[in-house]
Amino acid sequence: MANEAPRDRKRHRSRSHILAAARELILEKGAEALSLREVAARAGYSPASLYEYFDGKDDLVATLVAESHARLNARMRALPTALPPPRRLIRLGQAYLAFARENPEDFALFFGRTPSKRQAAADPVTGSAYEVLRDAVVAGLEDGTMRPEAGGDAEEIAYGFWALAHGLATLQLTHLRGFQADFEAADLRALETYVAGLMPR
Amino acid sequence: MANEAPRDRKRHRSRSHILAAARELILEKGAEALSLREVAARAGYSPASLYEYFDGKDDLVATLVAESHARLNARMRALPTALPPPRRLIRLGQAYLAFARENPEDFALFFGRTPSKRQAAADPVTGSAYEVLRDAVVAGLEDGTMRPEAGGDAEEIAYGFWALAHGLATLQLTHLRGFQADFEAADLRALETYVAGLMPR
Repeated sequence: MANEAPRDRKRHRSRSHILAAARELILEKGAEALSLREVAARAGYSPASLYEYFDGKDDLVATLVAESHARLNARMRALPTALPPPRRLIRLGQAYLAFARENPEDFALFFGRTPSKRQAAADPVTGSAYEVLRDAVVAGLEDGTMRPEAGGDAEEIAYGFWALAHGLATLQLTHLRGFQADFEAADLRALETYVAGLMPR
Repeated sequence: MANEAPRDRKRHRSRSHILAAARELILEKGAEALSLREVAARAGYSPASLYEYFDGKDDLVATLVAESHARLNARMRALPTALPPPRRLIRLGQAYLAFARENPEDFALFFGRTPSKRQAAADPVTGSAYEVLRDAVVAGLEDGTMRPEAGGDAEEIAYGFWALAHGLATLQLTHLRGFQADFEAADLRALETYVAGLMPR
């Protein structure tokens, strides 16, 4: 960025500005209802000038989705890897929840409106935020800190834990928005309860 | 219904028909984007004639939401109450998931688009689907089949379990739609894992 020409910097700022407007509109109305006309109006551009920055609605949404995933992924990967796997899993769940609270548009867009690139457990997870979660479970099964009575391989255990964090985040952003409670404390207890269910007896 | 006059029956059918059209549109575009004009077109009525059946969009949506909750509630309350509380909790989670799979419009409408009537744990839960879940946890804490190391009162434990079932359902209806997996088996293992984490050690 430091070496960008002024013209490139301006272009970069314009793109960011348009993306921010689109992200707001998606949170308000959903990605299906997003129209370039509305994005243009919100960002203060003419509809035609948007095409200088994006090839169309699909390109705009794809850019937003990629950005959202990159943010979540960076957040998950910033955690120390040296923690014991059960502790690490809980920290990852908390990071996921913090991301959802601080970036509700990204969360709604990435998970609520776009399909996973993977279509089966055999598909690669390389580089994704989900990979970080699954790796923590793989480590826990390998070092014996996890041995759930209910069974399940790393994929299933990671899926269940992810679903728990996802459900906590989703309820707080939708049905329970405005509900008065100490959600951070309740979320931690829920994550700990699930992880306790993974421990050997 | 058996004693309804033909005119009332026709009115009842028309209302049901309009509600079904509205439910479809909400699933496609979300409740915010719902327009009476589109509902009328989908149901084959003129926009003006919709007002013979509903006072407007808010009335229509409120009717749908009440119906959705009544369906879920009936489903949850149909389960045998004599099961041991941990087993009962798992069955309730499975019923919630089956409801979401079979009634994705109801699920999305009730949870994704409308706020809870309760705004704090002190508010009453009487008669709701959530009450059934919380009652199972209360029973488990009372008879000692549940004593989570992570702590939490009945409200927090029920919230965590609900969030797990909600996250499993939500991921399958959105981000993981089309993902090839035995979700019913994986969901059962996830519910069992959470409940195992509630057991005394």
